[in-house]
Amino acid sequence: MSSPAGSEIDTSPGRYPLKRIAIFGPGLIGGSIALALRGRTPETSLTIWGRKPELLREILRRDLADSVEMDPVLAVRGADLVVICTPVGVMEEIAKTIAPHLEPHALVTDAGSVKNCVVTKLTPFLGNRFLGGHPMAGSERSGLDAARQELFAGAPCILTPTATTPPEVLASITEFWAALGASVTTMSPSEHDRLVARLSHLPHAIAFALVNLVSSTLPEKASLLAGGSFRDGTRVAGSNPSLWAGILSENREEVGSALREMATLLTGMAHQLESGDSNSILDFLTRAKEHRDQLPLPRPDEFL
Amino acid sequence: MSSPAGSEIDTSPGRYPLKRIAIFGPGLIGGSIALALRGRTPETSLTIWGRKPELLREILRRDLADSVEMDPVLAVRGADLVVICTPVGVMEEIAKTIAPHLEPHALVTDAGSVKNCVVTKLTPFLGNRFLGGHPMAGSERSGLDAARQELFAGAPCILTPTATTPPEVLASITEFWAALGASVTTMSPSEHDRLVARLSHLPHAIAFALVNLVSSTLPEKASLLAGGSFRDGTRVAGSNPSLWAGILSENREEVGSALREMATLLTGMAHQLESGDSNSILDFLTRAKEHRDQLPLPRPDEFL
Repeated sequence: MSSPAGSEIDTSPGRYPLKRIAIFGPGLIGGSIALALRGRTPETSLTIWGRKPELLREILRRDLADSVEMDPVLAVRGADLVVICTPVGVMEEIAKTIAPHLEPHALVTDAGSVKNCVVTKLTPFLGNRFLGGHPMAGSERSGLDAARQELFAGAPCILTPTATTPPEVLASITEFWAALGASVTTMSPSEHDRLVARLSHLPHAIAFALVNLVSSTLPEKASLLAGGSFRDGTRVAGSNPSLWAGILSENREEVGSALREMATLLTGMAHQLESGDSNSILDFLTRAKEHRDQLPLPRPDEFL
Repeated sequence: MSSPAGSEIDTSPGRYPLKRIAIFGPGLIGGSIALALRGRTPETSLTIWGRKPELLREILRRDLADSVEMDPVLAVRGADLVVICTPVGVMEEIAKTIAPHLEPHALVTDAGSVKNCVVTKLTPFLGNRFLGGHPMAGSERSGLDAARQELFAGAPCILTPTATTPPEVLASITEFWAALGASVTTMSPSEHDRLVARLSHLPHAIAFALVNLVSSTLPEKASLLAGGSFRDGTRVAGSNPSLWAGILSENREEVGSALREMATLLTGMAHQLESGDSNSILDFLTRAKEHRDQLPLPRPDEFL
């Protein structure tokens, strides 16, 4: 395999000092990283790349970065670490653009909520300097206005090293997230996608579907009678539809499987109920409650 | 149709003063009714029927009732209104036992979460003095310890009159629930069951199924990565399994249909994702978000 410019990292320094950081995408995640770095490691020099001049001006006004850039090439100049927090769909284009201009020792990571396609698409341009990441923190709100300094405090962050990731790269990016308060776990990109399909993408898909089932089969006034189980089971249906259409599509294979597994479980429950098999129903519910009661619960209203 | 003793109400007084009330079943709902009556209409004389002597002693110690009874016949003596708050499975037996001993003007209502089978089973014994009810308030906790004086404040309460329900009976029981702070709506028993199957029973079934899907297909440590969407989407899987196995079974036909409708929606999403039909997915999510954003939201953690 040929190595395009910028794809092989210079590992000679051994460890990577992350003194100058470039964030691509000043949304909920990028903005929260900036806020957290400003609060926790104010000595870090910070550049934010974005497309909207008015948002970049706001960033400077709020002192969320030392500089802002609309040119990706200028944004990565001098950066020890580039964190790509844009929608997954534009990451490949960004990687291609910045790769030839990265510092020899620069690391690149991302915060996309799917990993297999991101790692597959970005690695040809960025090589082993790239390590996929997914901070599992968020909110049904999006954008810079929703950003919070403590968004990552106590939140899980999954990093997805591959066979070619140098240990020093993994160590540095682990340190970066730990410094923001996140609790870092590693797994393969495929395992990540299988897992988040079931722990995050499926619950979102279910929430959207449950709202549509109710709105299409019940009279309008019925929603007035919705109680807490419906409210909580559909909370994340308030999330950004185009963001989530993107996430579900990018993880289509695993989300598709998870949706079919769920459909099979629900059809099985219907069958047990209709055939009067109340022992199986009771066993099913008891097993679920026992497992649910053992779960560590994240703080309310903070993680997606 | 012959009218067994106690089945036809004496409507001569026109309105029913509810000065003496008997509550059957001192659990979350029965206990909360007692607390609300004590707080809001302390002049009401209150009798609580239950099976457990230690619980009845606690009720007297806490002054939740003027008297307690283990004998259903003694419990209804002198009562203007009997409110059956036991599990649905034992309501028929209670109705049969108390019917011949009710005061001629006594009203009977219940708080069961299914209505078609309750109305069908109790009406032959209680006649038109019986009106089915369902206060849509609760918590994943159960029992007297979880009872709260303000459980019904602002909560919807559905009453299910039939063609034979005298308007005075409906008016009195509406007043009873309104006095506890509930917002009363009426509909037929079948419409009630169809509606709660989708607004309450289905979200519960989904929560239990989602926990089991995750616990059976992912490694144990995966649960550590569960975020807010999983937490909120499965909150009610912490509910009492035997209570909910009963509720789902008693509404088996409507819950079965709702589960199959949901399975069809989820399979449809899987198909759209796998075939790359991102427009349909985006439309589906957008429709859900628009509807969800318009929903009146009950206060957090209060209604089921």
